[in-house]
Amino acid sequence: MSEKERFDRLRLIRSPRIGPVSYRQLLARFGSAGEALRAIPDLAARGGGKASVADAGAVEREIAASRALGARYLLMGDADYPVLLDQMDGAPPALIVRGDVTLTARNCVAMVGARNASAAACRFARTLAQDLAQRGAVVVSGLARGIDTEAHRGSIDSGTIGVIASGIDVVFPPENAALQEQVAAEGLLVTEHPPGTQPLARHFPARNRIIAGLALGTVVVEAAPKSGSLITARLAGEAGREVMAVPGSPIDPRAQGCNQLIREGAILVQNGADVMEAIGGFDTRMVRQGRFDFVGEPVSSDVAEQERRAVTDLLGAAAVPVDELIRLSGLSPAVVQTVLLELELAGRIERHAGGRVSLS
Amino acid sequence: MSEKERFDRLRLIRSPRIGPVSYRQLLARFGSAGEALRAIPDLAARGGGKASVADAGAVEREIAASRALGARYLLMGDADYPVLLDQMDGAPPALIVRGDVTLTARNCVAMVGARNASAAACRFARTLAQDLAQRGAVVVSGLARGIDTEAHRGSIDSGTIGVIASGIDVVFPPENAALQEQVAAEGLLVTEHPPGTQPLARHFPARNRIIAGLALGTVVVEAAPKSGSLITARLAGEAGREVMAVPGSPIDPRAQGCNQLIREGAILVQNGADVMEAIGGFDTRMVRQGRFDFVGEPVSSDVAEQERRAVTDLLGAAAVPVDELIRLSGLSPAVVQTVLLELELAGRIERHAGGRVSLS
Repeated sequence: MSEKERFDRLRLIRSPRIGPVSYRQLLARFGSAGEALRAIPDLAARGGGKASVADAGAVEREIAASRALGARYLLMGDADYPVLLDQMDGAPPALIVRGDVTLTARNCVAMVGARNASAAACRFARTLAQDLAQRGAVVVSGLARGIDTEAHRGSIDSGTIGVIASGIDVVFPPENAALQEQVAAEGLLVTEHPPGTQPLARHFPARNRIIAGLALGTVVVEAAPKSGSLITARLAGEAGREVMAVPGSPIDPRAQGCNQLIREGAILVQNGADVMEAIGGFDTRMVRQGRFDFVGEPVSSDVAEQERRAVTDLLGAAAVPVDELIRLSGLSPAVVQTVLLELELAGRIERHAGGRVSLS
Repeated sequence: MSEKERFDRLRLIRSPRIGPVSYRQLLARFGSAGEALRAIPDLAARGGGKASVADAGAVEREIAASRALGARYLLMGDADYPVLLDQMDGAPPALIVRGDVTLTARNCVAMVGARNASAAACRFARTLAQDLAQRGAVVVSGLARGIDTEAHRGSIDSGTIGVIASGIDVVFPPENAALQEQVAAEGLLVTEHPPGTQPLARHFPARNRIIAGLALGTVVVEAAPKSGSLITARLAGEAGREVMAVPGSPIDPRAQGCNQLIREGAILVQNGADVMEAIGGFDTRMVRQGRFDFVGEPVSSDVAEQERRAVTDLLGAAAVPVDELIRLSGLSPAVVQTVLLELELAGRIERHAGGRVSLS
């Protein structure tokens, strides 16, 4: 990939209303990010709105800031973009990383759990991470308080990857500043956000999908029902990765999330050997590839006004799956995707999890 | 069934070398226990040995003792012999019971676990038993220390069945004397042993099969690896019943048996609702019926000396499955079973779990 194309791709993903889905669709339709950037205003106009693209100067300043921080970019399509993550729905088109990117090519296991975990669970998490590291696995976690922190500490010597929900120069929680620096120095620190980005609440589910996506399987150590850790586990399962959970006594409320996961089919794990056995059976053919995103690529030529209206009329405030729109409209997937792309660039629709869209 | 036949059946099962398998085979071949008792000396002689039958006076004294204790007999074939137990491999031909036998016809759940269970697990077991009782289930356990005791205590008001490894008048452990009396008075107390029988170590696995056999499913609450509770769970599974386990933290050694069971496919249960959901899906068509015992009934006429020798030559000190003997000898199942029955009555072979036999 040329330096020019790399720059254009970063500029494309930093442009307003461009998400992982529209990014891939624009590249598929126009062949290069440069062409896509040029086409965006026209596409948005056809969708009934206006769209701008990211300021080139701002993108240059972001790149300079990343370099100054010792970070570099991994773009989707780069040889060292993590293979397993690439196969994940909505994988980030650009990662900013510090450290050893070869870690992503080893057997990665995600470990997630409660921020306010019990002392026993924290000790267990650290021991499990050490055990996994000694067995040659790389531990992926989120540098949060509690289980995440212990997972990194236990694996720092032999392979740890920290994925954060902020810019690579921003630390949260503050007490993990030294640990984050150590992860970057001895392991790998990963984010999808430009330097200076604060860790907003809405970044965390997106961060969780990177954690799940980097790993062959996700181990939940201690998690309350409806916690973020369970979302990570769900994302892992939806992506065809192994979902594992450490059980606990039913009288401990903090064990209920894990126990419920096991009831729903997660593999009960008690130690590193159990985890390695589970991911040893991992079959990469089971990994789902863009299941929701690509119900056909957009067409390369224009669609008729009548077709555009047929799709628009089907949309409402409630999110509906794209394949449902295709079925109801009777139009080809390519035409429907094209209309949706134009509407998205015009700011008239929003994309939701599970390949669903709604009017915005 | 006539009183005479009932007496003869009890006398038959109390006779030396008669176990559940030979009992059923003799009844199948001779049509009545009286005829079977008369045939035993001849059969044993053909097997190359001698056999006596139980002394009628001793059986009369046993019956009198049971009556004096307020107990009665449930014989296989009686209308109130527990249906689920009847379908179990090696079910006892005669039970001695005190209390309400209609409890066996309700939804029975076995609860087993460690004698030296943690205080938390004991409290949990009691709560679970109460929860199950309130949901209309009957709790079956073994009146041992620890989990068994709490299982009975929690369900005593609304339905509990205690199965013991001794005579109905013998209490073990001694501190459970009042509880055992309460189980007999308000629930059901069950044994297969005559009054006065002491609880020998070898009685316990046999007792465990009654516990598993009476229930739609077995819940293991806290169990070390290789404990008796896990044997009960295995017997339940082999009989096509639900196997359930309460999880615990991997850092607690007492949780490892249950966690391992879950890894092997047992259903993780956290409360009464989970248990009821599991046994609600129970399909009686899945219950195995005499899988090992009846590889053909014995023939009603004599077998040739040559056939007898063919079977005997295949036997050794190592236990082999009966169906293996049938295959290797090339003889009909009925002939092989007849030879084995004669050898057993002659005291020359022993029967083992899994339908296997060896020279004694």
